[in-house]
Amino acid sequence: MGTASSPVSGKEGSFATQKVTKSLTLEWRLLFSLIFATIFYLQFFTDISLTSYSTNHDPWTGLASHCADAKPINGSEILQRQEKLAKSLYDHGASAYVAEPGANTQYFGNISEASWHLSERPLLLMISPTLEGDTVSAKITIITPAFEEARARLLSVPGINVAYVSWAEDEDPFTIALHALSAADGLIYVDGMMRNFIVDGLQKAAPGVRVITASPEITQLRERKSPAELDLLKCANEVTVLSIRAVQAQMYIGIRESEVRAMVDEALAAAGLVDRWALVLFGENAALPHGSGTDRVLGKTDFILIDAGGVLFGYHSDVTRTFMLRDSFIPPEHTTIWFDVQRAQTLAHAVAREGVNTSAVDKVARDWLDGRGYQGYFTHRLGHGIGLEDHEAPYLRGGSDDMIRTGHAFSNEPGVYIEGKVGVRLEDCFYINEGGEPIFLTQGVGGQAHSPLCP
Amino acid sequence: MGTASSPVSGKEGSFATQKVTKSLTLEWRLLFSLIFATIFYLQFFTDISLTSYSTNHDPWTGLASHCADAKPINGSEILQRQEKLAKSLYDHGASAYVAEPGANTQYFGNISEASWHLSERPLLLMISPTLEGDTVSAKITIITPAFEEARARLLSVPGINVAYVSWAEDEDPFTIALHALSAADGLIYVDGMMRNFIVDGLQKAAPGVRVITASPEITQLRERKSPAELDLLKCANEVTVLSIRAVQAQMYIGIRESEVRAMVDEALAAAGLVDRWALVLFGENAALPHGSGTDRVLGKTDFILIDAGGVLFGYHSDVTRTFMLRDSFIPPEHTTIWFDVQRAQTLAHAVAREGVNTSAVDKVARDWLDGRGYQGYFTHRLGHGIGLEDHEAPYLRGGSDDMIRTGHAFSNEPGVYIEGKVGVRLEDCFYINEGGEPIFLTQGVGGQAHSPLCP
Repeated sequence: MGTASSPVSGKEGSFATQKVTKSLTLEWRLLFSLIFATIFYLQFFTDISLTSYSTNHDPWTGLASHCADAKPINGSEILQRQEKLAKSLYDHGASAYVAEPGANTQYFGNISEASWHLSERPLLLMISPTLEGDTVSAKITIITPAFEEARARLLSVPGINVAYVSWAEDEDPFTIALHALSAADGLIYVDGMMRNFIVDGLQKAAPGVRVITASPEITQLRERKSPAELDLLKCANEVTVLSIRAVQAQMYIGIRESEVRAMVDEALAAAGLVDRWALVLFGENAALPHGSGTDRVLGKTDFILIDAGGVLFGYHSDVTRTFMLRDSFIPPEHTTIWFDVQRAQTLAHAVAREGVNTSAVDKVARDWLDGRGYQGYFTHRLGHGIGLEDHEAPYLRGGSDDMIRTGHAFSNEPGVYIEGKVGVRLEDCFYINEGGEPIFLTQGVGGQAHSPLCP
Repeated sequence: MGTASSPVSGKEGSFATQKVTKSLTLEWRLLFSLIFATIFYLQFFTDISLTSYSTNHDPWTGLASHCADAKPINGSEILQRQEKLAKSLYDHGASAYVAEPGANTQYFGNISEASWHLSERPLLLMISPTLEGDTVSAKITIITPAFEEARARLLSVPGINVAYVSWAEDEDPFTIALHALSAADGLIYVDGMMRNFIVDGLQKAAPGVRVITASPEITQLRERKSPAELDLLKCANEVTVLSIRAVQAQMYIGIRESEVRAMVDEALAAAGLVDRWALVLFGENAALPHGSGTDRVLGKTDFILIDAGGVLFGYHSDVTRTFMLRDSFIPPEHTTIWFDVQRAQTLAHAVAREGVNTSAVDKVARDWLDGRGYQGYFTHRLGHGIGLEDHEAPYLRGGSDDMIRTGHAFSNEPGVYIEGKVGVRLEDCFYINEGGEPIFLTQGVGGQAHSPLCP
């Protein structure tokens, strides 16, 4: 029940808000109530909006439709991958390829790390070549903890020949795995991401077998993307650019990094991406490529750096834009950096083609920035492969001797970072088409950023 | 602006709510507004609460204070761990122990997986023994990507002798790591959780060195908990039991699994735990030990199974309670299962002591349940080690030859699962005290569950 009204005294006024409001006179209470009534009237019974996000003016309109037609990779494409792998294993004399849930099991068996979390109990996807006449086909074996076999079967791994083999809690999973392969000697390839205790366990269970990391020919199968994969990568990357543009339209001088990060997440969610992430850095905070840990307010002279991405049916986007608002007043020397970084991105793009060494592409961007006086300020590699992982082999970096091939997809993300002052990075991913030429995955929405005001 | 008022016609009434409300007469609008005004008056200016969670009746009262005095493991304890490790490495003739961010780097270097996410760029903690006179001490080297060195230094790894060594994007991190160790031959121990490509990389960078998984003596250092560790484990596990009890008090017949899961998360959050998780399973859903994927409503005849946990300064809780509400009407045969599972837990607890084989403890619970006619329905091991990982070695399972030691901490979680019907699991963790005796980590709040109504 309500407490008796009493005048606000200086002493009572120093207590918490609740106490203060309880002490208001009846007149004031009625006035407050009438104000609330008016607000409610306006809010619910008229078109006048008193909050910034009215449902009539959804800032993310249009994002949802952009990838509405996107489809997951179909089962027959996964069967083709298994068949290619089986042939390669056969050619190498390997009796199996073994992997734990991760990008490679997603590629070859539709088992993502999200669909089966790693634990101390191994779940393994094993793919073996089987010979029928002249044809090599793929035999799929899933090694699962026995008490989770029902859940493992729900993974519905595609395959012509799929077997589930379970190990009980008092059994050794590795002995069971080797037994299922009937491999007493020869060669077993394991995934490079596999945890060491599993590699060890397999090796100990079969001393006569050589358990080694899969050869480059195997790991490279996933590097070169199919048309269906490229469609997903394009849509995810395009809608990430559109999301950054939609967020720019909602921003103002004085907003916080955390507020913008929440907006980017909303926009990417509206776009239908999962596993979203965003780096939002203002002014000198952008000089640390992976963030500062503070939550800065946007000033008039600050560039805004947004590096964001998400996942569409397993395939990643990764886009960075450094930009300004209409009300910004960016120092001319920072704008110069922006155009120098943009030029580095353009020059690198022009040389990235089938048959070129990945390190040469990095060098072109780096040499240009060095020549413009930024030696030591472009502190990271030019780019990474992208697909079922945000960062995956091959990489555009010095010291690498990987060759660019048709179907490869990379980020191209030069940057200049001057600690305490400014950071500029521009990132678009691209792929190599059938003609051996580079095409931005963001081409459908304009490709590279055109100016600091138009991200 | 507001639209002109018009009477509600049958046709207009079939549109969305917004349209309907716009069509209300002025009189109705004013009435609604006055009702809102009254609600606001009552809500903010009196003690009458109109929402179920009023701040005056916080269902999680008391949870926040339970671990308020808990403290993180202090730096000097971490130094002692490093010293013990260095001595053990020296005794084994190993020049270093190398690990990626995870439970072992948290134990030896205060680097958790949360504080440094794994990526394709290795960050490694390397601990080497150095001999000064007769004293073996620990040298700490952190191998970090160069452009992230500033962030790596913020990890503030404790140590007498700590060096940060960085690798540039065009360098090989493994060659740099081996160079920092000055190890051209001999033995390097790597962590069992390390990803295979890092083990491979280190081995390739120094063909003369033997890179192998750390010996059991090394991995066992973390198994036996110190008094400070046990204090954290006790508090986390106690407050998890208190949280489940607080949630029980808020539950009713007809509530959904997802609503209860949200409550458990709220309660554990109020208790100060991070990295929280909860399995909430009603009736026959509990017959799948790791859940069903549906969102069932609670019926009168359903047992409720909550398996939940969280983290307090790195140390995990893990508690399962199967229970009923006052309004429940549990079939007598399910209540019988409950008491049989409770008895299995009691019997196992009684034999778990210093010097006993871990498999013998599992066997006692299993033999009892088998004798009661549940052969094949206790589908998982009895328990797991617990500490910086929720599940860690050693395990209470058949086929293991690990021995129970002072300072070990385990879960004791027998269960009976009859698919399509019922699942009962009871889980309390315990540790082995200096006298070699088992003590429940939940002892401070009553230990084991006492009846289906008192979890």
